[in-house]
Amino acid sequence: MTQESRPPLLGIVGGGQLARMTVQAAIGLGVRVRVLAARPDDSAVQVWPDVIVGSPDSFDALSGFAAGCDLLTFDHELVDPEHLAALEAAGRSLRPSAATQRFAQDKGYQRERFAALGLPVPAHRLIAGADDLRAFGDEHGWPVVAKARRGGYDGRGVWIVANPEEGQTLVQRGSAAGVHLLAERRLAIERELAVLVARRPTGEAVVYPVVETVQVDGICREVLAPAPVPRPLAAEAGRLALRVADVTDAAGMLAVEMFAVDGELSVNEIAVRPHNSGHFSIEGAVTSQFENHLRAVLDLPLGDTSLTAPAAVMVNVLGGPHGTDPRANLTAALTVPGVHVHLYGKEAWPGRKVGHVTALGDDPEDARGRARRAAALLMGGE
Amino acid sequence: MTQESRPPLLGIVGGGQLARMTVQAAIGLGVRVRVLAARPDDSAVQVWPDVIVGSPDSFDALSGFAAGCDLLTFDHELVDPEHLAALEAAGRSLRPSAATQRFAQDKGYQRERFAALGLPVPAHRLIAGADDLRAFGDEHGWPVVAKARRGGYDGRGVWIVANPEEGQTLVQRGSAAGVHLLAERRLAIERELAVLVARRPTGEAVVYPVVETVQVDGICREVLAPAPVPRPLAAEAGRLALRVADVTDAAGMLAVEMFAVDGELSVNEIAVRPHNSGHFSIEGAVTSQFENHLRAVLDLPLGDTSLTAPAAVMVNVLGGPHGTDPRANLTAALTVPGVHVHLYGKEAWPGRKVGHVTALGDDPEDARGRARRAAALLMGGE
Repeated sequence: MTQESRPPLLGIVGGGQLARMTVQAAIGLGVRVRVLAARPDDSAVQVWPDVIVGSPDSFDALSGFAAGCDLLTFDHELVDPEHLAALEAAGRSLRPSAATQRFAQDKGYQRERFAALGLPVPAHRLIAGADDLRAFGDEHGWPVVAKARRGGYDGRGVWIVANPEEGQTLVQRGSAAGVHLLAERRLAIERELAVLVARRPTGEAVVYPVVETVQVDGICREVLAPAPVPRPLAAEAGRLALRVADVTDAAGMLAVEMFAVDGELSVNEIAVRPHNSGHFSIEGAVTSQFENHLRAVLDLPLGDTSLTAPAAVMVNVLGGPHGTDPRANLTAALTVPGVHVHLYGKEAWPGRKVGHVTALGDDPEDARGRARRAAALLMGGE
Repeated sequence: MTQESRPPLLGIVGGGQLARMTVQAAIGLGVRVRVLAARPDDSAVQVWPDVIVGSPDSFDALSGFAAGCDLLTFDHELVDPEHLAALEAAGRSLRPSAATQRFAQDKGYQRERFAALGLPVPAHRLIAGADDLRAFGDEHGWPVVAKARRGGYDGRGVWIVANPEEGQTLVQRGSAAGVHLLAERRLAIERELAVLVARRPTGEAVVYPVVETVQVDGICREVLAPAPVPRPLAAEAGRLALRVADVTDAAGMLAVEMFAVDGELSVNEIAVRPHNSGHFSIEGAVTSQFENHLRAVLDLPLGDTSLTAPAAVMVNVLGGPHGTDPRANLTAALTVPGVHVHLYGKEAWPGRKVGHVTALGDDPEDARGRARRAAALLMGGE
């Protein structure tokens, strides 16, 4: 095979569990992948041979890595936007682009743009000073939700502000720390939903069935596929996600997290990469989000997103208070019938996502029970 | 994590596509695996970081590799039996053991042992000289099938002997080349079936539904799961495979290939490792043969072997006459709906297995049509 005929080399920036599960999907397709990982023991580095160790925060590391690849995709949304812009200015292909990633990197930008485009978003205001927060709370009612515009995830960077005095303190602290805030109306959320979309650079897109995400303290604990919602709401969620994919010009996987309030949907967060809400798809959909991410960013035809069973339930494995290695509990967990265990090779700090378990079945509650039981056993429970 | 608490390191001897798909399954379980590969571009080496390059034919390479691992399993059955015995004498854990591997390494030994144990095997005779072959043919009728006792696969090492004169020539050539022969009655085979069993060192075993293997020129082309056979015959095939697992004291995956003649089963070949007839199980069974191989050799509880759909069809991707790289045809193949493509990263010599495609569905013929179409496209067809 000549050099000219070699398939493109895809670089993945970041070596976490999303990269780990993406390289796992790359094995079947036989596509060429290289990973840029910050540490030599990162999750993906443990299972992939073609790795460059270097910090995605360093422009030198990033641009050197990009120079050796034909195109880049991302395990997370934490790369400096100026670095992304500089890579594009240097002619590198980013999938998703810097412009698409901005929607996930800056919640304030996202809310403003989506609102301007007529997409449903919670009532919100960008906060320049304590007066903005006070005015927003007085208009929409206290408490209000304040969010860091950048960098928050898994419940970090979100505050419930009870009154103007708390608001003033938060704004002062934020200002001192360089954190820009966004205020949002606190909603009486019935359910949190998520919809995954895979989209090619050409605009061709496929959408997965809407799922329910069960959050505790802002951390996703369980995902139920399909979401137990009326069919019209499910269809509306799918349409909304496809609109988000189009307006953000997504390339690769996109996850759109939504709130359902009084039967109405609004967009909460988006991720422009494979997402925890899509891990069920490894076994629960004909084509997993990881394979479809590869197919989408490599501009290959997209795969069938249908569910493979009436119900699929994913339960996250979180580090417990004692930091027990879940691998030490594999024997116990594998006694649970029909569960699919995915461990990430990460140290089990308390509350950290270190794996997940998926179970499929005809009965959602039965699948949920099995997935929960295996996850609890992996976390050192009984 | 202390050194003492680390999970065991499993060594896989051989770096072919079976090792490749086994390490893919290891990612989810988080188990530790190292591969001994003859060449730095072997199929598994392309997708796994913990690799020792060295020849499994060299006792030095093999014993050095074994010394660094806690237990060994095998990608193929070609390791010198004396080397296996020496490893065991040195206290290494082999799964499967040297004694188990002998059943797959020596067809003559296998036939004789199985016959002595009352397992159904074709009428056969070990051939010491041309007179043995003549006597066997005269008793059972010409033509007879002659097989090399060791080393044959994918149709190699099998001859159809029309008459005593051809037999004499073959025996002389075999004798000159050091090939020991086995004669078998030529059967009017209705179907070729295969049953996969996963068995732990403790003897606990699970059996997969019986499949039909479609062979052309001695090479497996397609696998249909479940096999379209009456239920009593399917049940008998499962029982027979479990008996073979017990009498061979299998550890890990075992594939039992069978002939069905006049509604009666006989054992044709066995493989004491994951096998081509089980590739459908990656998507077509709740637990794939690769995950169950890992679970079995690591003495972990075994996974559910049920089918995930009414029908699963696997079609091998063979190198075509022009040596086309199947990766160059990925775009075409992925337009076929609902197919799962597995490429092995091997050079596409004519007739060489370089990948496979699996399709699932309610209708076996529909699934077969899709899998065939995608495989043909990968091979450069239209």
